[in-house]
Amino acid sequence: MSVLIKGGRIITAADDYVGDIFIEGETVSLIGRSLDVRAEKVIDASGRYVIPGCIDPHTHMEMPFGGTVSCDDFTSGTISAAFGGTTTIVDFCLQQAGQTLPEALETWHEKIERAKPVIDVGFHLAVTDLQEKGTLEDLAKAPEEGVTSYKLFMAYKGAIMVDDETLFKVMQVASETGALVMVHAEHGDSIDVLVKQALAEGKTEPKWHAATRPPITEGEATNRAVQLAHLAGAPLYVVHVSCKEAIDPIARAREADWRAWGETCTQYLFIDESYLDRPGFEGAKYVYTPPPRPKENQEHLWHALSTGVLSVISTDHCPFRFDGQKTLGKDDFSKIPNGGPGVEDRLMMIHNFGVREGRISLNRMVELLSTAPARFFGLYPRKGTIAVGSDADLVVFDPNRKKTISAETHHSNIDYNLYEGTEVTGVPETVLLRGQVLVENGELVAIPGAGRFVRRARFGEELPGAAGERPIQVG
Amino acid sequence: MSVLIKGGRIITAADDYVGDIFIEGETVSLIGRSLDVRAEKVIDASGRYVIPGCIDPHTHMEMPFGGTVSCDDFTSGTISAAFGGTTTIVDFCLQQAGQTLPEALETWHEKIERAKPVIDVGFHLAVTDLQEKGTLEDLAKAPEEGVTSYKLFMAYKGAIMVDDETLFKVMQVASETGALVMVHAEHGDSIDVLVKQALAEGKTEPKWHAATRPPITEGEATNRAVQLAHLAGAPLYVVHVSCKEAIDPIARAREADWRAWGETCTQYLFIDESYLDRPGFEGAKYVYTPPPRPKENQEHLWHALSTGVLSVISTDHCPFRFDGQKTLGKDDFSKIPNGGPGVEDRLMMIHNFGVREGRISLNRMVELLSTAPARFFGLYPRKGTIAVGSDADLVVFDPNRKKTISAETHHSNIDYNLYEGTEVTGVPETVLLRGQVLVENGELVAIPGAGRFVRRARFGEELPGAAGERPIQVG
Amino acid sequence: MSVLIKGGRIITAADDYVGDIFIEGETVSLIGRSLDVRAEKVIDASGRYVIPGCIDPHTHMEMPFGGTVSCDDFTSGTISAAFGGTTTIVDFCLQQAGQTLPEALETWHEKIERAKPVIDVGFHLAVTDLQEKGTLEDLAKAPEEGVTSYKLFMAYKGAIMVDDETLFKVMQVASETGALVMVHAEHGDSIDVLVKQALAEGKTEPKWHAATRPPITEGEATNRAVQLAHLAGAPLYVVHVSCKEAIDPIARAREADWRAWGETCTQYLFIDESYLDRPGFEGAKYVYTPPPRPKENQEHLWHALSTGVLSVISTDHCPFRFDGQKTLGKDDFSKIPNGGPGVEDRLMMIHNFGVREGRISLNRMVELLSTAPARFFGLYPRKGTIAVGSDADLVVFDPNRKKTISAETHHSNIDYNLYEGTEVTGVPETVLLRGQVLVENGELVAIPGAGRFVRRARFGEELPGAAGERPIQVG
Amino acid sequence: MSVLIKGGRIITAADDYVGDIFIEGETVSLIGRSLDVRAEKVIDASGRYVIPGCIDPHTHMEMPFGGTVSCDDFTSGTISAAFGGTTTIVDFCLQQAGQTLPEALETWHEKIERAKPVIDVGFHLAVTDLQEKGTLEDLAKAPEEGVTSYKLFMAYKGAIMVDDETLFKVMQVASETGALVMVHAEHGDSIDVLVKQALAEGKTEPKWHAATRPPITEGEATNRAVQLAHLAGAPLYVVHVSCKEAIDPIARAREADWRAWGETCTQYLFIDESYLDRPGFEGAKYVYTPPPRPKENQEHLWHALSTGVLSVISTDHCPFRFDGQKTLGKDDFSKIPNGGPGVEDRLMMIHNFGVREGRISLNRMVELLSTAPARFFGLYPRKGTIAVGSDADLVVFDPNRKKTISAETHHSNIDYNLYEGTEVTGVPETVLLRGQVLVENGELVAIPGAGRFVRRARFGEELPGAAGERPIQVG
Repeated sequence: MSVLIKGGRIITAADDYVGDIFIEGETVSLIGRSLDVRAEKVIDASGRYVIPGCIDPHTHMEMPFGGTVSCDDFTSGTISAAFGGTTTIVDFCLQQAGQTLPEALETWHEKIERAKPVIDVGFHLAVTDLQEKGTLEDLAKAPEEGVTSYKLFMAYKGAIMVDDETLFKVMQVASETGALVMVHAEHGDSIDVLVKQALAEGKTEPKWHAATRPPITEGEATNRAVQLAHLAGAPLYVVHVSCKEAIDPIARAREADWRAWGETCTQYLFIDESYLDRPGFEGAKYVYTPPPRPKENQEHLWHALSTGVLSVISTDHCPFRFDGQKTLGKDDFSKIPNGGPGVEDRLMMIHNFGVREGRISLNRMVELLSTAPARFFGLYPRKGTIAVGSDADLVVFDPNRKKTISAETHHSNIDYNLYEGTEVTGVPETVLLRGQVLVENGELVAIPGAGRFVRRARFGEELPGAAGERPIQVG
Repeated sequence: MSVLIKGGRIITAADDYVGDIFIEGETVSLIGRSLDVRAEKVIDASGRYVIPGCIDPHTHMEMPFGGTVSCDDFTSGTISAAFGGTTTIVDFCLQQAGQTLPEALETWHEKIERAKPVIDVGFHLAVTDLQEKGTLEDLAKAPEEGVTSYKLFMAYKGAIMVDDETLFKVMQVASETGALVMVHAEHGDSIDVLVKQALAEGKTEPKWHAATRPPITEGEATNRAVQLAHLAGAPLYVVHVSCKEAIDPIARAREADWRAWGETCTQYLFIDESYLDRPGFEGAKYVYTPPPRPKENQEHLWHALSTGVLSVISTDHCPFRFDGQKTLGKDDFSKIPNGGPGVEDRLMMIHNFGVREGRISLNRMVELLSTAPARFFGLYPRKGTIAVGSDADLVVFDPNRKKTISAETHHSNIDYNLYEGTEVTGVPETVLLRGQVLVENGELVAIPGAGRFVRRARFGEELPGAAGERPIQVG
Repeated sequence: MSVLIKGGRIITAADDYVGDIFIEGETVSLIGRSLDVRAEKVIDASGRYVIPGCIDPHTHMEMPFGGTVSCDDFTSGTISAAFGGTTTIVDFCLQQAGQTLPEALETWHEKIERAKPVIDVGFHLAVTDLQEKGTLEDLAKAPEEGVTSYKLFMAYKGAIMVDDETLFKVMQVASETGALVMVHAEHGDSIDVLVKQALAEGKTEPKWHAATRPPITEGEATNRAVQLAHLAGAPLYVVHVSCKEAIDPIARAREADWRAWGETCTQYLFIDESYLDRPGFEGAKYVYTPPPRPKENQEHLWHALSTGVLSVISTDHCPFRFDGQKTLGKDDFSKIPNGGPGVEDRLMMIHNFGVREGRISLNRMVELLSTAPARFFGLYPRKGTIAVGSDADLVVFDPNRKKTISAETHHSNIDYNLYEGTEVTGVPETVLLRGQVLVENGELVAIPGAGRFVRRARFGEELPGAAGERPIQVG
Repeated sequence: MSVLIKGGRIITAADDYVGDIFIEGETVSLIGRSLDVRAEKVIDASGRYVIPGCIDPHTHMEMPFGGTVSCDDFTSGTISAAFGGTTTIVDFCLQQAGQTLPEALETWHEKIERAKPVIDVGFHLAVTDLQEKGTLEDLAKAPEEGVTSYKLFMAYKGAIMVDDETLFKVMQVASETGALVMVHAEHGDSIDVLVKQALAEGKTEPKWHAATRPPITEGEATNRAVQLAHLAGAPLYVVHVSCKEAIDPIARAREADWRAWGETCTQYLFIDESYLDRPGFEGAKYVYTPPPRPKENQEHLWHALSTGVLSVISTDHCPFRFDGQKTLGKDDFSKIPNGGPGVEDRLMMIHNFGVREGRISLNRMVELLSTAPARFFGLYPRKGTIAVGSDADLVVFDPNRKKTISAETHHSNIDYNLYEGTEVTGVPETVLLRGQVLVENGELVAIPGAGRFVRRARFGEELPGAAGERPIQVG
């Protein structure tokens, strides 16, 4: 199969020019001013941007949490992602109590085999327990299976939280194996005390979710993770940074040139703590962790994105239906499943409010949504850019088309949308994965199972900003 | 004329892949995995890097200074640059006492017409005097002539130094015209006092050049320029940052997201103040301004380059022969012409000590030497990257070839080299300017006059990190 | 003459205890739990604080400015000060154009001889001009006359502003003579440009006074002074710090343990830029320099006072009557005499809003208003504390008495009060200078001429925070 | 009993003057220029300093640790302290496993009753375990017994380390009761891992003590404690800060005006990690925790002391004899009892190297060794200053007498001295506790049991730098 994309404004993390792209098979084969080649399919991209397919390194499809399961499986979740211009996700394979890591990976592989995803899928491996003998050894082997990042939770005490001994030992393993350590950074112990105290005082509404997880708990844990990773010699990636308190230790690490970085998520740029106070039980829609923060943090986050203190915007897509799932916590905020949707909305929201409103450049948008995630997670240069030899994961984006974001029209299984009613200008029009068209004219044309599991390189094999001679494998 | 560069490892500020580049006329027309096209010239780049032609935004060819003239004209200077992989320089057109700005520009245009440079040349406009009526108006018109940056000297009192009123008024003009303000930041008043006091005490050796211009004088002036530019609303580019004292105010500006940036030069990364103390009068070779600094500043500079606090490495190439020029100051360090060579050595030095020694990545090297200067000085995307439609300014670089840097073999007219005897691995092999081969197999093959005056876009039309919708003109 | 002050709560910069103070002649001779001595006068201080007499190191009595003269002479000005609990001022002796420094000092000595001040008076020496031959030598001799601080203005271009060469040379002299350098820090050149541009645009109202002297001009000059003083090796005291932009460079100097400190003035803690916008011409009352700032700076200033970044609160008392003086600038804000009153209100305002509202402790208040000024300006331990051997400059302060501040009741010649109508709790009740009662029960009982010229020690003879062995002279 | 101290140079945290002090009973009753009173004892202090008795808020007398007990009991320990000019210690009452807090306090009270200390003694309460029901309630009651500070260990895993839940809950109690929280800040989990790994690799020598507790572990824990205390609303005092990594979070807290402060100890200013490498087993003498650090930290600590980032110098006196105690760890560094001596040497060392060498002033020395500890620990103004009504705890100090510090002459039971052979100038000559002479002419004249248990006020009743109206109780 061959595809020719003609006359688009091609935008990468660094470049911005008009040209034609010719795809043979799964990869880009030619880029030219005006290509005179025959193709089985021709896409007219004049007046459009052509950007690399977005990568969402933080999703939770079919994730068991608090007695329920997130409502998108890898079918609906990846279809939703594709409509949003995302062609690869890296999802969290979560070790269940009593499970070995190979068993956990096996479970997740089965999920995607069953679901026939339409976009590419990689896995991070979330360690919750070192009880099982051999867990550290199993962990050390995961990179050989293309799973090159370890996730640990510093919160959710009594459930998936690890203690600092586990955290540190896993970091030591990562420093040996070249895996990237990812942390959910909140101080679980104090949060646990505050939650119990709040409930004991009859404070049960959704807003207490935020009040019992104040920004300082995120700031403390972020600093702790940064320090311990530096001590262990492991690279660190702090997920879902939501507030100034957590930005600060990352800024200090960047300034010191330590190997620690952070991502934020779309929702922290738009939704503040006042949403939790919405009438009735509606606040529950915004119960995710870390919680929505005081509004001033939004400017801190944009600033950190524009000055390079934060490196990625992900979604932490972890949808629970309002009806029947969120309502589990009707009488007790601590029982509301933690998580929100967003895998489909990221590119439109960031383009509209980030680029169009002058907060970041188009190049920086591509870097935050595609190139940087590709580099951090061992997908670059196969993915994350538009270059000959790279996977033809491409988004033809109409910067002028308008759209109203809504649960009515999104493709996730969830029954609400965090940005309901928001009007944006700029919409993904055509989305390709490895040369196959997934979405065209607002219609899904992907073949089920178009997506594959992606094996990822070790961190540092393609480190952002790293130095030196390295072998280059394209395609 | 068409050229095909085959099988090189193509490196831009963001990308790194193997491919073929096809050039038709002056620009890149095709990039492909394996191009099957006929070309008049084919260059085998296998095992080589192909990088965008380097841009040196800070040179002083044929510059009158202290009663003499820098010893490279635009012939020898641009040939030397070409051998070093630099395909564009932006040189300083310096208003002479009593001269209007249009007269100054006329003088400089005549210089390059006479010299028939082999690489492209742009001009900054250095304002030394607002006495002449209409100077501010003339300044405002310069961008229409493709001269989009204004330079001011905060030192050299009694000669080309401007007072703060002039500095501020020029910044105000820049905020209107979209020009970039460049400053030589040293506190001229205190330096003038210290120099006179030193001479009065009989301190005449080269080392007193550094002692009378301590780092704090650079730090103070840098901060002053940053503050005044912010007040005036003008973008600022601080040239030749040499020490921590000057890095700090730029770091604060970057952190605050102010429009102020800085460059350092090759020599500050390698030569420290002890060189001024070399026996005999040899220290005079290292009399440039700012002077060589205490050695620990070298690590501060590398750190600032790797964390993004500094944005560009230039050369401040301003050569004066040891014999007959530097010796003017044999009995009085203040009479030694200030300046040193380096236009030819930059890429080799930075590749060897920056990239090979793990301080910066290859991508970052390309950004510092080519992409960032192109963006700051209105040359991007015509220059500064490898993309279809861009000028075919290219360097085929052999990362494994070894060379000993020496005045014996360099191509500048100067009779010494700052890095004499340094062995490097990695040498520019073939250099092209707009599709024409300038240097091949160590031989100059350029046609005299291959280079042209380049009109540059206004700042912000292609601002690094800037946001928003902008028209794209390629070619 | 002997005085016994019984049962007061004695508060110094460090201590706080109940006791009796016995004064013989001019100094404190005994402090005891319950003194059984006979005294010519007994003051019952039970329920009162007894604090060291306040020192105001920044006043301008009878100061020529812009064609007029500040409306308090050393008679009315020192009476006003005494009522406010201030027993020593250090006023600025200002070199007039064409005057030598000894002539300037002579003029000021004549002023106080004529005026018969009721409190002690010292002089700073303000250098405005190095034209006159021998000025630097004269300056070097001033400390021998007990004048141990030099003042320079970095603003008021065309009038009393000095250039950086003068500033630096005076700092060099100070580094030799042990004088303290004081600067009015504003970037005079840019302000001059902005003022002329504003007037050219017909902007003549008082509010343009602030708009043409934005905070960044103060921040820049503050940093410049800090850097140059450090280079020259001179201790520096930045007067009337008004905003975050100027606090920051002082905070950096404190952090680095450089010999640079700053004061703020009462008015910057209470009056913000909106006052300049008051209807009619009333804004002119608040035309002093630096101008009132955006309100958020008030919290920055309190914070800097409580964390030790700022060291003193003075008043910059420089009163011009609204009627007939301020009105000189009715049609041109630049002609409004710059200055405001306040010598009488400082202690009451700081006690009420600083101590009572919990921003600083009583000890810190004494330090800011008395001990620190005494130490900086060579008056300690003769003044600035309550200790045996020290001058019996004392304030018996009733912390519970209420008062409404008003021009109706103040003792300055000025016809308005910056804090008109403010109700405070806490009033100086009895004020003594060297054992003589100046004010008692709201009545002036001082003998004219009770005050004397005070010779001050050199800086570092009593440096705050300085180390080492030093001779101690008390009394 | 009455005592007259004549003609000394009286130095407090703020003042410095010559005078006589008259003591009646236990307190200072009169201070005068030249007192004409009759006294039972007259001490000639001419040419001497008279300073408030030093307070050491960090000692461990008779402390059980690792199967042995520190070798000074409250007899020898307080005699040693007295010789060093220390008149009050605050020692740590340590909850033993299975013990309730009242039982622990009872044990410690018995120790001092038995030992008949010669100086005053207070207790901190160290919580190691919340297992026992009612522990938090017991803790809340401790301040009523005059025990107003809680200590927690964040290291010594498996022994006295508490987890973060305990730490946070105790902080919450402190925020209610007005107690000050003290933490030993090291990241116990990672240290435990590193120690086990080192031993497994056969690394058993004393130097591994430092290598397995790197500075970053102290920095992390310090930040964690600062953040959690701020969250809980409790005031925090970080003990034995030893390195830049731990200074930094305290500096940030000071800058933010949070209620968090830190102390360092004498040994960190003088002994660096190279001491651990001394031949044979001698390094064991320097095995205390945190361990000796890289030498550059000494300058960071002095800087923090002089800029106010650190507030107190204590000793952490916890002596174990080399012979028989330290040797327990001959084959395993982790079995060396952690601790070193120093209660007697502090004042001499700090005077000689701090004051005489120009790093801090005499006033600051008194503040660091006496006034600040008194204020932090609820002893001020009864102790910590020289004022009428305060306890007559006084040191007559001869600033010119020379002495060589040595285990031969010190009064502790320990068989080595950290500063062996150091020559100092400046020695405590006469030491008084509440008017009783303890040491005179190098002889102990104290009556056994001269010292008493001191009940301490709650924190904030005498908070350094705190604001507002407060009742003053002297004596």
